[in-house]
Amino acid sequence: MSGFTRPLARLIDQFERLPGIGPRTAQRLALHLLRQPEEQIRSFADALLAARTEVGHCQTCHHLSAEPTCEICRNPERANGQICVVADSRDLLALERTREFSGHYHVLGGLISPMDGIGPDLLQISSLVKRVAANNTEEVILALTPSVEGDTTSLYVARLLKPFTRVSRIAYGLPVGSELEYADDVTLSRALEGRRAVE
Amino acid sequence: MSGFTRPLARLIDQFERLPGIGPRTAQRLALHLLRQPEEQIRSFADALLAARTEVGHCQTCHHLSAEPTCEICRNPERANGQICVVADSRDLLALERTREFSGHYHVLGGLISPMDGIGPDLLQISSLVKRVAANNTEEVILALTPSVEGDTTSLYVARLLKPFTRVSRIAYGLPVGSELEYADDVTLSRALEGRRAVE
Repeated sequence: MSGFTRPLARLIDQFERLPGIGPRTAQRLALHLLRQPEEQIRSFADALLAARTEVGHCQTCHHLSAEPTCEICRNPERANGQICVVADSRDLLALERTREFSGHYHVLGGLISPMDGIGPDLLQISSLVKRVAANNTEEVILALTPSVEGDTTSLYVARLLKPFTRVSRIAYGLPVGSELEYADDVTLSRALEGRRAVE
Repeated sequence: MSGFTRPLARLIDQFERLPGIGPRTAQRLALHLLRQPEEQIRSFADALLAARTEVGHCQTCHHLSAEPTCEICRNPERANGQICVVADSRDLLALERTREFSGHYHVLGGLISPMDGIGPDLLQISSLVKRVAANNTEEVILALTPSVEGDTTSLYVARLLKPFTRVSRIAYGLPVGSELEYADDVTLSRALEGRRAVE
């Protein structure tokens, strides 16, 4: 019991359930909101409900979308024969921010992880294979994190897709601006492995 | 523009308005909520609205309360003739956690701060004086932070209350568990000033 009056304690409790929000922060946020105009609280509550009820997944690429088909899939200029495969919508947005990729995406919804009981069936892999087989896909670019799960998923997906299209994966190596001296062993060996001819 | 679908972007925006929540955290919280059962989102939204509409201030002590008179003021066992004066409800709760004080409180709603344009009229000072004058108050304990604003407010309030009752303030000194060596000068001089006879 926080000692706060019932409705306030309930709000603090709701904030505390959020990841990374401790009791102190929850209290601070709730007290802050009490001091805001009622109008603003109402739009916060509306935004919560709207986000939960309106946002679903794109039927084609499974990116978060309020429409049945997301903006990227609807954009005819992006149908360039490339599909970039990512684990989740956040990764997609990180790639979008680079403005370097102008094709379509496919969001798997996670990575294969037998330890956590996540097998290929729980991910959007079969829909990817169907999509690639049905369309004229020139290249599938795998953009998954370099980790045991990411590598497993890349290998698994690549094997399924190779009969239909060219499959590549993004480069792993030294991040730009980093010091070679401080790079970890795995990154360094990946960087060596992925060396390219100087042109 | 975050690149997220409209309703999700709106929710992220709402989180970003909260103090201490940056764009990354806002995004993480919003995406977390999308994955929660609709039931839970609904109770979050309800809690927000309820807290904002139901929680007001106690008519007597101005502590946050959903009733016209707060629980502490309603409790007859706490009418021991002592009133502890605090700047806001959070301070009240910190004192409650010690379980050392069993009287009533009075929440000023801030501290006198001419620099920020906060004069005595904006605080619950006149209601405190009326309350003390009307009731049989034996002692008023000032529990305000030791700062320029806190000291100014203490002095001001004490002068107004002295005709009616005994006025004291909480002790300032070395916090328990701290090292004298590392105490700052002001705390140390306050501690010297506030020395007490060893019994």
